[in-house]
Amino acid sequence: MKEQLEQFYKEYKAKSNAYSLALTTMYFDQATIAPTQGNDYSNQMMAILSTESFLHAMDKDSICKLEQLVTLDIEPLLKTELERLLKHLNESKDLPQEVFTRKTLAVNESSSAWGQCKIDQDYKAFIPYLKNVIDTTKEVLTYHPNKEKHPYEILLDQFELGMTFEQYDLFFKEIKAHFVPLIKEIQEKGKHIDDSILKNKFSIEQQEKFSTELCNYLKVDSTNCNMSTSHHPFTTFLSLKDVRMTTHYYEDILLSSIYSIIHEYGHALFGLQIDEKYEGSILSRDIGSAMHESQSRFLENHIGKNKAFWVNQYPALQQLFPIFKDVALDEFMDIVNVSKPSLIRTEADELTYPLHVMIRYEIEKELFNTDSINYENLNERWNELYKEYLGVVPSHDGEGILQDSHWSSGYFGYFPTYALGSAYAAQFYHTMQQHLDVDQLLESNQFDVIAQWLKENIHHHGGAKSANEILLEVTNEPFNPKYYIDYITKKYRTLYNL
Amino acid sequence: MKEQLEQFYKEYKAKSNAYSLALTTMYFDQATIAPTQGNDYSNQMMAILSTESFLHAMDKDSICKLEQLVTLDIEPLLKTELERLLKHLNESKDLPQEVFTRKTLAVNESSSAWGQCKIDQDYKAFIPYLKNVIDTTKEVLTYHPNKEKHPYEILLDQFELGMTFEQYDLFFKEIKAHFVPLIKEIQEKGKHIDDSILKNKFSIEQQEKFSTELCNYLKVDSTNCNMSTSHHPFTTFLSLKDVRMTTHYYEDILLSSIYSIIHEYGHALFGLQIDEKYEGSILSRDIGSAMHESQSRFLENHIGKNKAFWVNQYPALQQLFPIFKDVALDEFMDIVNVSKPSLIRTEADELTYPLHVMIRYEIEKELFNTDSINYENLNERWNELYKEYLGVVPSHDGEGILQDSHWSSGYFGYFPTYALGSAYAAQFYHTMQQHLDVDQLLESNQFDVIAQWLKENIHHHGGAKSANEILLEVTNEPFNPKYYIDYITKKYRTLYNL
Repeated sequence: MKEQLEQFYKEYKAKSNAYSLALTTMYFDQATIAPTQGNDYSNQMMAILSTESFLHAMDKDSICKLEQLVTLDIEPLLKTELERLLKHLNESKDLPQEVFTRKTLAVNESSSAWGQCKIDQDYKAFIPYLKNVIDTTKEVLTYHPNKEKHPYEILLDQFELGMTFEQYDLFFKEIKAHFVPLIKEIQEKGKHIDDSILKNKFSIEQQEKFSTELCNYLKVDSTNCNMSTSHHPFTTFLSLKDVRMTTHYYEDILLSSIYSIIHEYGHALFGLQIDEKYEGSILSRDIGSAMHESQSRFLENHIGKNKAFWVNQYPALQQLFPIFKDVALDEFMDIVNVSKPSLIRTEADELTYPLHVMIRYEIEKELFNTDSINYENLNERWNELYKEYLGVVPSHDGEGILQDSHWSSGYFGYFPTYALGSAYAAQFYHTMQQHLDVDQLLESNQFDVIAQWLKENIHHHGGAKSANEILLEVTNEPFNPKYYIDYITKKYRTLYNL
Repeated sequence: MKEQLEQFYKEYKAKSNAYSLALTTMYFDQATIAPTQGNDYSNQMMAILSTESFLHAMDKDSICKLEQLVTLDIEPLLKTELERLLKHLNESKDLPQEVFTRKTLAVNESSSAWGQCKIDQDYKAFIPYLKNVIDTTKEVLTYHPNKEKHPYEILLDQFELGMTFEQYDLFFKEIKAHFVPLIKEIQEKGKHIDDSILKNKFSIEQQEKFSTELCNYLKVDSTNCNMSTSHHPFTTFLSLKDVRMTTHYYEDILLSSIYSIIHEYGHALFGLQIDEKYEGSILSRDIGSAMHESQSRFLENHIGKNKAFWVNQYPALQQLFPIFKDVALDEFMDIVNVSKPSLIRTEADELTYPLHVMIRYEIEKELFNTDSINYENLNERWNELYKEYLGVVPSHDGEGILQDSHWSSGYFGYFPTYALGSAYAAQFYHTMQQHLDVDQLLESNQFDVIAQWLKENIHHHGGAKSANEILLEVTNEPFNPKYYIDYITKKYRTLYNL
């Protein structure tokens, strides 16, 4: 009986994985190279497949068998895997298929519409898609077993287990208390950093060549990981041996593609360094977003904005862009780390970054607090908060409310994990420095040793452990925002001679 | 009851299409950019999805309903569609799922292995994959309802309805009778064409730029059609508004990417110009291969090897490759059309091309005539036939038996349709010249008028009509190889001053 149930689970899982790989591949294709006229048809087909996948996963008989299996005397790993799976299945067990399909279609349509709306800077055209995604997301939440919970808290918890308003409010309060005065102090008394050199145009062909340099330095292995381009950079995981990153090249923002590649490779590395025993298991995928973002933000900031990293990379950059030939490395490091309230989250410096996140967090809270959202003015609400927290106002919605793909993909509750992930990253970095001479490794082109440390301490677990378990195991204490606050404060006080 | 059955068919069809789009996208992804380490996993997942798709399609109850529906008083178009579908379903109705899955997996594994084996010029490494594909193909054929038919004839018929040994043997006999003496005569008495300029290296970056020129001239619309690269050029059809072409750039074969793009766009154009009413229907896909190849070969040869075509394109080529600056257009046309027995089918001139096809046809016949194939020597058999018909011998298997992807994908019986398609193309061209001033249109950058003629006369039917029906309708006579023989003979006698 145990053997039969195990065999059943093996087949059940394989079929789920087949649907999942198909949908991931189709989504990736659409986000990267698919000709736009095909989107309507492929969205319909993806909705059908998603429904098939949902019906397969939620089949009552199947769940019943899995519930039987988990009570038997089985391998601990299998037990953990089944428990996690059943937790997720239970969260959707009351969701009617029709509602699921409607939400899927809403998300697919909105995802494909968003890119063009962003290019056209046309928020009005995007409203019906956004409304549809939010409405169907809310409808889905009404079927969640934890009905007493606030809908937005359900979402927060889905992206990072156990996170609530209270915890995020506290966290952002800390950030506000420390970072807002520091930003002000820098503006008033900090040394002047001239980064006007970045206002030049940088040929995309040359940028692509620098990407190759970067990938070589990071030892990206093209047999298991490669890079495409898309409107918004992202990473997607097809298997433990097949991870795809994307970037976006802008002629007028040199640092954009550079830092998105480093950021995305942080995600990719996580996916590639998970223990092989988790291949095909929910434990290879169900990783908290803050934990995942801690790895991308770690690479982006603690590695990519470190002078030791650029000791190797800067000469190549200078050669590709001779405009830098008279800019010393120290001067370049000032430019890379300059702190300036700005409009685009993904290009923000480390100090102002969490405020971009806070703006989205506040808007999301509002969206899920009311049944009558004023969509017409949502872009103005965005601009208002940018003015309030960062003192800058978008000149159009492409650099305002339409800048990120998340909402178009139905990712509400994801943004706060970026800030939380940055804070985890600082805590990990503090510990790593006690084990490794990070600067020396970066200078001597040994990024692989750092990657190996991340693998052994963090990545190999996949989603088998929670963020707090890993933090405790690696850093010997639970999450503590102090490391983040200290790291940022010290870094920016030093940079600005304060 | 009719309404219910129609609704049932609508859903049945949509689900089939969803599986089909998923698999096509996954196959395309694997053939273009997928990192190789992911292939094992994705092949397993694709085999699972193919099986799901097969089980869905072959479900006895469903087929029963379709058989009921087709007998009712329904729209003629729906009737045609259902009849065609049921014909195919009946061909597979006795095939056990397990055999189907095994063949699918064999083909997936062999497809992913082939590219590397070709690069490594390692036929030995490819043998187990090829054997597995041939064995499972033969096994599948044992379940075909027409058991009395020769297995290879079943395959020939699958790719081009109604084609038999007898017909192909006759066709190739004609070709042999006319082309082999002509090839000899050219070698003995033809004027000398110096094409040594093609032995230079041509930068891939510049070749890519020329591809853009080509696509502009052919008015490729990037919102419904685009181009990637793969080991072997191919075209794939995701919907009537989403067609993907691929090409392959070789530094030492300038004409390779140029003619594969023109060839593949012939396929693409067919797929893009099918009447919208066939979207999602089997009638949009089930097109005879010879008919499809007639369109790619038409573009490649009757358009792309025409001087009028190059009047526009040649200056751009000269600019990108200054080595041509002192080569007059007429001289370049001689070079483009030079006839020389060679090793690679896709780069062969029009005169020797069908002999490449004949070699594959003969080997395929042998493969399906015996149960004890001598795999170890199959590469030598290939080389022997090249020696016999073309007087050339591959220096390694990468330019020999491993050159084409077809066998690795289980496409046995496909090759002969290339030659047949070339012959259809000549017959269509003969008629087109009576309607349009092709040269004048090409010279004045009006390829769209030619595309429109192809749409109205051929493409819009999709697969609703057979090749012979279309030939009769457009050219006023059934297939007649005379046009092909005459066209080739005249072209090459003129070119070589014979």
